[in-house]
This record gives sequence, C-alpha cells and structure tokens, in this order.
Amino acid sequence: MGQKESIVTTDSPRYVKSIPLRNVSDVEKIKSEIQLGNIVICNISPLANVNIDEVVRCVNELTEYIHTNEGDIARLGEERIVLTPKTIRIWRTPDP
Amino acid sequence: MGQKESIVTTDSPRYVKSIPLRNVSDVEKIKSEIQLGNIVICNISPLANVNIDEVVRCVNELTEYIHTNEGDIARLGEERIVLTPKTIRIWRTPDP
Repeated sequence: MGQKESIVTTDSPRYVKSIPLRNVSDVEKIKSEIQLGNIVICNISPLANVNIDEVVRCVNELTEYIHTNEGDIARLGEERIVLTPKTIRIWRTPDP
Repeated sequence: MGQKESIVTTDSPRYVKSIPLRNVSDVEKIKSEIQLGNIVICNISPLANVNIDEVVRCVNELTEYIHTNEGDIARLGEERIVLTPKTIRIWRTPDP
C-alpha cells in the first residue's frame, strides 16, 4: 500500500492562502493551490460585485474539481468559500 | 530525527473548523482544536458586539498560545481570525 504519488508529508509546509476571486482566471490559481495540498479561503465579493453569473460558474467549476479530487468545499459567511485538499475536511456544525 | 511525539500524520483527518467567539470560554475550545491539529476560523463579531475589551484579551491569549505552540495566527477580513497548528502556515500576500 502507499503509492509514492503524494508530495504531501507532515514535513511539507502546508499553507492557508486567502485568494480573492477577481476574475475567471483565478479559478486555475485556486485549483493549483489545492493541488499543492494547500487550503484556500476565497473571497468571492470582488467578482460578485461585477458579474454574479460568472461567480456561479466559477464556484460550480471549483465544486466539481474539489469533488473529483476528494477535497472539500463550503461557504464561510456571506462573502467567502473555503476549499481543502484531500485529507483535510471541513467541519459542519449543527449550529443554527 | 523524528521523535514519535506527533499524533498528526497524513492519514489523520484534519479539519477546518469555524468557531464563533461568543464568550471567553471559547478560547479553551479553540486551543483544544489547535492541539488536535485542526485549523480554526474564528468569527470574533459575536463577542465584539458585546465587549471589545474581552475580544482583545481573548485574541492576546490565543496569539500567545499559538506562538508557544509554533502555529500561526492572522486576521481574515474585518470579522475573522485564522489559527493554525504547527506545520501549517498562513500565507501573507504582498497584496495591498
């Protein structure tokens, strides 16, 4: 067991990166960070203030990517989404 | 190298947990999550709306705890702070 595919070990520094969604091309930037094993907190309001349809498309694309890569994605308040790579889950509270 | 102290491996599920700061006792809850190797996103506004002095005390205590435990702490927008355990860093962008 254990194919030598993963570049992430406990010795690799992982990062939490805050990346604003300003335009559609930021989707690729976010995917790259997830691929590297980093956690992304994405503020969608810069693009949401300009074109809400593009935000929906971007979030749909990211959701599909995250599911394909066994990561996790969730909203954080009104303006942000959190995206995690495989092995890191987002805790859902039963909080109202 | 490699003392067998760490309970966190790539096989351990880590969580991103959103924990609101409602009162001073939430500080211990947040410390416990960091101790477990989890990442905490803490919305400080519930307590900030009631007693800003207590928020300052809580954040000072958390900052000290994080530094002692070699984690990382940073603001996220106006209402939130992010706290990470050892091995996970918060990326600081040169973004204005």
